Amino acid sequence: MNTFDIQEIIARALAEDIGGGDVTTEATVDPDKDGEAVVVAKEDFILAGYEVFLNVFMSLEPGIEFNVEYLDGDNVEKGATMFTLKGPMRTLLTGERVALNLLQRMSGIATLTARYVDAIEGTKAAILDTRKTTPGLRTLEKYAVTVGGGRNHRFGLYDGILIKDNHIAAAGGITKAVEAARATAPHMLKIEVECESIKDVKEALKAGVDVIMLDNMDEKTMAEAVKVIGGKALTEASGNMTLERVRKVAETGVDFISVGALTHSAPAVDISMRVKG
Amino acid sequence: MNTFDIQEIIARALAEDIGGGDVTTEATVDPDKDGEAVVVAKEDFILAGYEVFLNVFMSLEPGIEFNVEYLDGDNVEKGATMFTLKGPMRTLLTGERVALNLLQRMSGIATLTARYVDAIEGTKAAILDTRKTTPGLRTLEKYAVTVGGGRNHRFGLYDGILIKDNHIAAAGGITKAVEAARATAPHMLKIEVECESIKDVKEALKAGVDVIMLDNMDEKTMAEAVKVIGGKALTEASGNMTLERVRKVAETGVDFISVGALTHSAPAVDISMRVKG
Amino acid sequence: MNTFDIQEIIARALAEDIGGGDVTTEATVDPDKDGEAVVVAKEDFILAGYEVFLNVFMSLEPGIEFNVEYLDGDNVEKGATMFTLKGPMRTLLTGERVALNLLQRMSGIATLTARYVDAIEGTKAAILDTRKTTPGLRTLEKYAVTVGGGRNHRFGLYDGILIKDNHIAAAGGITKAVEAARATAPHMLKIEVECESIKDVKEALKAGVDVIMLDNMDEKTMAEAVKVIGGKALTEASGNMTLERVRKVAETGVDFISVGALTHSAPAVDISMRVKG
Amino acid sequence: MNTFDIQEIIARALAEDIGGGDVTTEATVDPDKDGEAVVVAKEDFILAGYEVFLNVFMSLEPGIEFNVEYLDGDNVEKGATMFTLKGPMRTLLTGERVALNLLQRMSGIATLTARYVDAIEGTKAAILDTRKTTPGLRTLEKYAVTVGGGRNHRFGLYDGILIKDNHIAAAGGITKAVEAARATAPHMLKIEVECESIKDVKEALKAGVDVIMLDNMDEKTMAEAVKVIGGKALTEASGNMTLERVRKVAETGVDFISVGALTHSAPAVDISMRVKG
Amino acid sequence: MNTFDIQEIIARALAEDIGGGDVTTEATVDPDKDGEAVVVAKEDFILAGYEVFLNVFMSLEPGIEFNVEYLDGDNVEKGATMFTLKGPMRTLLTGERVALNLLQRMSGIATLTARYVDAIEGTKAAILDTRKTTPGLRTLEKYAVTVGGGRNHRFGLYDGILIKDNHIAAAGGITKAVEAARATAPHMLKIEVECESIKDVKEALKAGVDVIMLDNMDEKTMAEAVKVIGGKALTEASGNMTLERVRKVAETGVDFISVGALTHSAPAVDISMRVKG
Amino acid sequence: MNTFDIQEIIARALAEDIGGGDVTTEATVDPDKDGEAVVVAKEDFILAGYEVFLNVFMSLEPGIEFNVEYLDGDNVEKGATMFTLKGPMRTLLTGERVALNLLQRMSGIATLTARYVDAIEGTKAAILDTRKTTPGLRTLEKYAVTVGGGRNHRFGLYDGILIKDNHIAAAGGITKAVEAARATAPHMLKIEVECESIKDVKEALKAGVDVIMLDNMDEKTMAEAVKVIGGKALTEASGNMTLERVRKVAETGVDFISVGALTHSAPAVDISMRVKG
Repeated sequence: MNTFDIQEIIARALAEDIGGGDVTTEATVDPDKDGEAVVVAKEDFILAGYEVFLNVFMSLEPGIEFNVEYLDGDNVEKGATMFTLKGPMRTLLTGERVALNLLQRMSGIATLTARYVDAIEGTKAAILDTRKTTPGLRTLEKYAVTVGGGRNHRFGLYDGILIKDNHIAAAGGITKAVEAARATAPHMLKIEVECESIKDVKEALKAGVDVIMLDNMDEKTMAEAVKVIGGKALTEASGNMTLERVRKVAETGVDFISVGALTHSAPAVDISMRVKG
Repeated sequence: MNTFDIQEIIARALAEDIGGGDVTTEATVDPDKDGEAVVVAKEDFILAGYEVFLNVFMSLEPGIEFNVEYLDGDNVEKGATMFTLKGPMRTLLTGERVALNLLQRMSGIATLTARYVDAIEGTKAAILDTRKTTPGLRTLEKYAVTVGGGRNHRFGLYDGILIKDNHIAAAGGITKAVEAARATAPHMLKIEVECESIKDVKEALKAGVDVIMLDNMDEKTMAEAVKVIGGKALTEASGNMTLERVRKVAETGVDFISVGALTHSAPAVDISMRVKG
Repeated sequence: MNTFDIQEIIARALAEDIGGGDVTTEATVDPDKDGEAVVVAKEDFILAGYEVFLNVFMSLEPGIEFNVEYLDGDNVEKGATMFTLKGPMRTLLTGERVALNLLQRMSGIATLTARYVDAIEGTKAAILDTRKTTPGLRTLEKYAVTVGGGRNHRFGLYDGILIKDNHIAAAGGITKAVEAARATAPHMLKIEVECESIKDVKEALKAGVDVIMLDNMDEKTMAEAVKVIGGKALTEASGNMTLERVRKVAETGVDFISVGALTHSAPAVDISMRVKG
Repeated sequence: MNTFDIQEIIARALAEDIGGGDVTTEATVDPDKDGEAVVVAKEDFILAGYEVFLNVFMSLEPGIEFNVEYLDGDNVEKGATMFTLKGPMRTLLTGERVALNLLQRMSGIATLTARYVDAIEGTKAAILDTRKTTPGLRTLEKYAVTVGGGRNHRFGLYDGILIKDNHIAAAGGITKAVEAARATAPHMLKIEVECESIKDVKEALKAGVDVIMLDNMDEKTMAEAVKVIGGKALTEASGNMTLERVRKVAETGVDFISVGALTHSAPAVDISMRVKG
Repeated sequence: MNTFDIQEIIARALAEDIGGGDVTTEATVDPDKDGEAVVVAKEDFILAGYEVFLNVFMSLEPGIEFNVEYLDGDNVEKGATMFTLKGPMRTLLTGERVALNLLQRMSGIATLTARYVDAIEGTKAAILDTRKTTPGLRTLEKYAVTVGGGRNHRFGLYDGILIKDNHIAAAGGITKAVEAARATAPHMLKIEVECESIKDVKEALKAGVDVIMLDNMDEKTMAEAVKVIGGKALTEASGNMTLERVRKVAETGVDFISVGALTHSAPAVDISMRVKG
Repeated sequence: MNTFDIQEIIARALAEDIGGGDVTTEATVDPDKDGEAVVVAKEDFILAGYEVFLNVFMSLEPGIEFNVEYLDGDNVEKGATMFTLKGPMRTLLTGERVALNLLQRMSGIATLTARYVDAIEGTKAAILDTRKTTPGLRTLEKYAVTVGGGRNHRFGLYDGILIKDNHIAAAGGITKAVEAARATAPHMLKIEVECESIKDVKEALKAGVDVIMLDNMDEKTMAEAVKVIGGKALTEASGNMTLERVRKVAETGVDFISVGALTHSAPAVDISMRVKG
């Protein structure tokens, strides 16, 4: 993870929430009063984002003390006490919502990812994320995917060449598009082509691509494609990857399965923070 | 909505995705080639965020032409063509993902909100959002809630006084906390107190609060609380508000029902953008 | 006060003043030379901003040592030594002007506020500030008002509903404007209406507003308005509130008196900083 | 004036005031309603800042129409209509306070400066500002001083060498300080020395400085200093320059008189904006 | 090129140069005076950066008119008039230095790159840049390399896996390092290993890397390495690539030759801008 | 040097290079592994920028330990070990390129400056830089010039009045231009006029300018100009100042010689950083 990014995300989130001040806490809590908070799981999940969580409070008050019982990647069971925090009561109350918003979202992503990873256990496939992330939070969300056992597809439009149908049409066919990419795009990036049929797969293979995306194919066609490719390129299955379906897809022999839902539709997990004076 | 915020969110999202450049599109698509895109609903939903969607492309290329068939708040049916865009093919391809990420998330929130609003139709209650929003996107998400027919609770810690259990404990009771808030907090903000029992409600009422939160009560206790309050304060039901339960809560006579899930767990709706040269 | 804001204000002020460097100090003062500074009051005033003052130097050099004799809200008499600072001579000289500019302005506001507060002592009214603050310094100026014993009106357009003549005209009357605000504006914000006559006051009262602004009324009309209102709404007197007049206004029984001059026309107080090697 | 600075000041001021939105205007004024505003002087003053004023509205809505009757530097008489604006009613209402805050402050500075300039009319002296400006607004305030007929002293610590008592003490005397500055500071900057006695003046003169500051001297000593200097350096009178005293100081023959009050204590002038639908 | 980046670089460069204002031009040139400028080559070179050059002036004054005789990639001969500009004289004078600084640097890089590219004409090798760029200007400098006929190596640490000696040592050998990268690094990035001997090359090849860097080898060893590799990986020659030596290196059969000097030591080309009133 | 600027330059440079993460180091180096690095000179040069170099690593990891053998201004001989660093291996590897890019550029400028300074040793002239610096790095580059023994000309358009041919033409002659500058530009800035002939020099002298630029003159004309000026103004020789020619120019008796090449064409010096685990 890029630390600069994270500090900026936290600062922005705190500014958004606190604005001109936490008027309630300032009016009701003495600035010298200390407090203690326990952070408790209200359901089972995979933890992701504990450093981000703690950093929210440290951004407000460097001297906060933490006791950390679980780390990223750990299975947390409902009822477990994950962290305890000690410090000024005002800081604990003011930082609570932002810290939880980030932790619940990140853990939600890690948890959903882990379910997909578990579903394909024993196959050779890996679960990939996509660029369907929350604008501004991609760094955190892609990290949460790795915590859940998934792997990261490209971070943006700049670190991977993914030739889709429109690029193919604009360039005049798969072969021409691949040649154009090889001639001018950065040579350290692999070239992937979105294929919708066995015919596409064959043309892509002939053009010497590094990765072939099997886009919106049924499992049977995928299996055939994997066979045709025969290890000469990596394969990525994409499109409509539900938890129900994903194992069947993995069993076709693909290398990667990309799942947009990991980041665009993972529900937040339920975590509470109980503060006492 | 705050226009400055929105431009900043879009600029940040584009920077995050494009980084040093859309290497695929630059390699395969001629800079002078024009294209056309149609944006199509892949499921039924309530549209929210069309201006944000269009602004993403305008941020990249001011001369893009749009044809807009649906506006925020409209019911879009699966298969409907929502917008068409004309302009440089490169711009259409480069902006696609960021624009869709924002539109799908906002429409997801509006759609879930509308389901809650529909569920309580005919009662006097209104659906409220919470501060459980995506860090950095609160402006957009709170707007999407209003598009779906919900109303906004406070935007942050600065525009409403919400005295929770910890504030009460720190101040030495409900009455003292309310007095402290009235004495020093901005007088243009209403004072709400989180109450967990009828006893709390009575104390809050006596202290003259503006809004009483009925926190994690069952419907029976809520109904009793509403009766005790008798219109002398606004009432907000909070805690565990599922779609299944929400109508029963509304029928207790509360004024507002706040639902964290509207923003923290709304799945993105499915929208596709088809580009042709 | 919002700490993020304050650090930003200080950083901006230092950048504005130092630019490419303090050429005089760099040329004439050895970087290893230490110095001591005493900060002395050149007139009587109420101190506001001592933390901001010290933070300016700490932003330049974290290791500066301070001795603080007076705190915010204290009456400082002419000739009193308020603080002493020890640290690198260069830091003391480079930070001096920015630190004093902020301290003198904030103390000026606290001092003028305190004169207004004193003028109405014994009445039930409180002195309020307005949005007539220095662009970019509102956080500091509103804080200085509270140090002087005043209270803060809304911080911006977002944390209070203040319906003025133009809003009334646009909405088609006081009643309609209030209804519109109640129907769509955030419910945690109180609604205030600017009234210019007893007739207005009666309509506002009937519409159930929370606060009534008695705008540019003479004391007699104000007294009548207070009577009409009879505690059913808070009252704010506004317009042309000179020190000479303010007590008479307070004696009409209003709850609040808002004074633009507190922030837009408070003269800086005179403070000097004497440095020795 | 630096245009980048001004846009940044305006954007910051609008963000500070509008925050999450102008809740009152959004609730009560139709987005399609147009309006007209007239900006009227409520006292006599020298106008400064009309471009900044108009830019506030243009930042919100590029299509606003203006009619401008007075320009910077003009004498505006009480009751005069200075500008009329046409555009969306919402924009007029939302931008009003920020635009007026800037215009009233800048015109206040220009007006006070002009009073000083008038007071010394016929002498050879010019009125200078100081670095005692509002943090963050120096660009605007220094500009307003020139509109009022004054001249600008250095903008910051970087564009002029001003050797004060502490620099002299640190360097080991006036001569050594001047030599150090000449040896290492940028040669395009003039060197000024703060002198508190005729003895200081003689040493500074011998050291070949460009400008001599006559600091906190009475008029008699100043006159003697001017004579001693005999045109071999520019002279600046400084310290306690009230409107009552300034003419006597000018008549001593000094070149410049610097007045901190121009920027740190100029009261805002009274201007109103009347909007109609 | 990333347009957002470029606007930011230009804005930063103008702010750095203009600061509080172009005091000379403001004092001597009438704001209404128009002027014309011709931009003339003072030596032969390859042009790069004309859009950036023009954008500097447009950032100051959108209405400037341009006549463009040469485009990026063109050979410009000494004495040629490249562009003419018409607009406010003040804008032409204020923008001149920043615009030339950028154009001269970018054209210097394109020109040096072209000399390397010419030196290896007819071989199959391509010239690559490195990360030895000017901090803050990488976008522009990498673009200038492509204008000169070179290709871009990775833009940063994020868009290519380049395993150097330290990574190898830390991971416990080439094989382990490559396996680690393949297991966890983004799969869309190619893996390159820095090899200093034929033994290294063989291990890298066996590990299945995509690109092999022949680091600081003599031509004979390089030729042997190319033979060993036999097209199973791309090859990059690196280290001490002078213009004198580069052809011999290219003739060893490598695919890429990376040259740090392209960006860290290209002298600026000589261009002048003549303005007339 | 302005510390704020430097932190910003470093942060920007690191963000540019690291982007979403150092994928190679993250994949191959254990986060807990410590390392040691030695920074070694690969040629002779004058060191400039060691604090900037160290700050790059401290920005990534505050706890890095340094051993510093050479300071800015020192002659470093080929083979010398300049610094050793101890800390997390990941930090050493990730910061290496940015730190070296800055150090090599700054030392290159100091080294070239020192060669010019040496070339004129024994004359009374000083070497000046110009505004032909790298956009965004002026603070660092101007500092490096002083490390090499040169002096700084103005930092930007704001801290010196330099009247060039276009200003003269626009104002209607040297005399008028100088008068205009004296009447309105900040009086703490010296006035310099660009002169192309003895006639120009005489007019400038008569107008009482502070500095006369002898622009593109041959040495004979320069010598005559120096004689004509007779110490009544400072003199700056400018235009085409090669190392070969510069001594002859200095011997004409000018005060300053400005050399654009110091910053626009200094090659980076060769420095390597060897890391071991």
